[in-house]
Amino acid sequence: DTANKVILCRAAIAWRANAPLSIELLEVDPPKACEVRIKILSSGICGTDLHILEGRNKVPLPAVLGHEGAGIIESVGEGVTSVKPGDKVLMLPLPECRECCFCLHPKGNVCVKEDVLSPTGLMLDGTSRFTCKAQKIHHLFGTSTFTEYTVVHEIAVVKIDDASPMNKVCIISCEVPTGFGAVFNTAKVTPGSTCVVFGLGGIGSAIVMACKASGACRIIGVDINEKKFPRARALGVTDFLNPRNLKKPVQQVVVEMTGFGADFAFEAIGLIDTMVAALESCRRSYGVCVIMGVAPNREQLSFDPQLINSGRTLKGGFLGEYKSRDCIPKLVTDYLQKKINIDPLITHTFHFERINNAFEKLGKGKIIRCVLLF
Amino acid sequence: DTANKVILCRAAIAWRANAPLSIELLEVDPPKACEVRIKILSSGICGTDLHILEGRNKVPLPAVLGHEGAGIIESVGEGVTSVKPGDKVLMLPLPECRECCFCLHPKGNVCVKEDVLSPTGLMLDGTSRFTCKAQKIHHLFGTSTFTEYTVVHEIAVVKIDDASPMNKVCIISCEVPTGFGAVFNTAKVTPGSTCVVFGLGGIGSAIVMACKASGACRIIGVDINEKKFPRARALGVTDFLNPRNLKKPVQQVVVEMTGFGADFAFEAIGLIDTMVAALESCRRSYGVCVIMGVAPNREQLSFDPQLINSGRTLKGGFLGEYKSRDCIPKLVTDYLQKKINIDPLITHTFHFERINNAFEKLGKGKIIRCVLLF
Repeated sequence: DTANKVILCRAAIAWRANAPLSIELLEVDPPKACEVRIKILSSGICGTDLHILEGRNKVPLPAVLGHEGAGIIESVGEGVTSVKPGDKVLMLPLPECRECCFCLHPKGNVCVKEDVLSPTGLMLDGTSRFTCKAQKIHHLFGTSTFTEYTVVHEIAVVKIDDASPMNKVCIISCEVPTGFGAVFNTAKVTPGSTCVVFGLGGIGSAIVMACKASGACRIIGVDINEKKFPRARALGVTDFLNPRNLKKPVQQVVVEMTGFGADFAFEAIGLIDTMVAALESCRRSYGVCVIMGVAPNREQLSFDPQLINSGRTLKGGFLGEYKSRDCIPKLVTDYLQKKINIDPLITHTFHFERINNAFEKLGKGKIIRCVLLF
Repeated sequence: DTANKVILCRAAIAWRANAPLSIELLEVDPPKACEVRIKILSSGICGTDLHILEGRNKVPLPAVLGHEGAGIIESVGEGVTSVKPGDKVLMLPLPECRECCFCLHPKGNVCVKEDVLSPTGLMLDGTSRFTCKAQKIHHLFGTSTFTEYTVVHEIAVVKIDDASPMNKVCIISCEVPTGFGAVFNTAKVTPGSTCVVFGLGGIGSAIVMACKASGACRIIGVDINEKKFPRARALGVTDFLNPRNLKKPVQQVVVEMTGFGADFAFEAIGLIDTMVAALESCRRSYGVCVIMGVAPNREQLSFDPQLINSGRTLKGGFLGEYKSRDCIPKLVTDYLQKKINIDPLITHTFHFERINNAFEKLGKGKIIRCVLLF
């Protein structure tokens, strides 16, 4: 019985940016009140994890990264009622306390207890549950999934169907709701519309699938890596643009292809230039541009405000604006009932110990979405 | 009978920016096919007219400015069927051709035949109907209302109820739909919400009235001219902020007053700084910022894209996103039936010949909205 005891396990530690992760023995404290300890079975690797490792986006280090994970509850702290040891669960990078103004608002999902906006890397009591080589190690977004065991708040975990294939559903923690929600909740793509998707990586692929499911009749995919095109075509992309092969700015080409621009534009890269290109690619009067990529820290988005005056909408939202604990188990059930398909969104599976190999391939654009198995 | 003849009338000509208008004798050509000539009875003076005169926003000059006007059809060109001589009409700065992709789209209103985005100052055939001192004079936004007679396209004019008080309804050409639509159509303000309105001029006042009508429980008004406050309070503003009297940026004060920011923020000034302040004043997750002010030409709007990633929406739209010919006559009827009130939006009435006096007072913030009578 491990409950109430420190667990010693293997974890990938990010000691600093621009260096490989280091597989170390990590001490994982027992969960405190309203917390749970989870044995991780699988974890996706998201572009945000890569951007943190590359130093583009800052979080407190050293840390255990990873924020989309599936596992089994090992033990629970005092007062935990929504999950129990043995439950299959997903970890949630956005918690849902169900008490704050955001959770109570019909459209709100950025719970006051989030640790995404200005990450502290600590639990809500201001401390960490991780120790390595006598050093305190930070959490990431209240999750930390690149470890055999983790501790998260009860409000950042949700029980899922017992029949869930644990080697796959981890991506329903982040990639799936982020991409699908950008289309279904944020943009509200309409049948017969024209969409343009900047970036055909993990989130971009989920966006393409959801645009197709929404009845978009034309889906223009933009990426500088043409190796992504055959796969994206299978998911629903009808037209491809590689900005490096164009003589004009890509947004000008999109406007010419579509008359006045796309009805809906999505940015799933995280660069200022592609954000502006996406906004300029959508049409005046009722075009909607959804920014899902996160730009490098301190970079400013800058454009002609006439783009907004003339009727374009610029939107975004974490986790596809889904309320995490309310909606994510339903997405899992939808997958089990074959109402949605997430299989094409997992292109590679690696054993956890090969995590650096996976990051290297992700950084080079050689894999779209990798699931780590423990 | 004046039909088919050139009419010689008085008009205020803007020969160049940063100079008073000049009252001159203007030759107004008869309407060509699909055009109408109108005897103007009243015209509002909008902030945009002032910004053009100040050189902040460029349009081709010399021109007859003014874009919110009420009048009577004097004569019609070949093929005109929707109005006839003697009809009371409003002129529309956004036409509605009812044939283009924008007019046919349920949410579209920026008709392909607009002359607002990159003004040519010419009719659709590329010529002008105005001559003064043997010089061709430009139109403005397909309207030009600072003249006793004007020529507009049939698609930029709409018949209104015979009972309409012509000394008032001119502001339903622009100010009323722009302000009301920003709230009802663009932001969709909800009962019980908190709103912040930057700029308590004409459009800002209409926005305040519509926020109150939408059931907003708190309306924060922001202006550097405190003389506007008593009037704005009567319209619905509950809290006032004068940024010049604050020790912190106004957006920080709004965030502190409201917990996490307002539900809805409106910019009705047309300055980059107040656009950013409005965006930063609304809350993450579901805050909506509506930009109605038009910034000086070539200035860029620049902000932290994390504001969008975390769920804020930035929107705008000409004429409050109303389809002009479809909706504006209904607003007039709503006014006649006392379903909406526009009287508080007219603070001053001047005879047309005192137009320079009116512009001077408007520039100094001494009047909110002036109607010129002919």
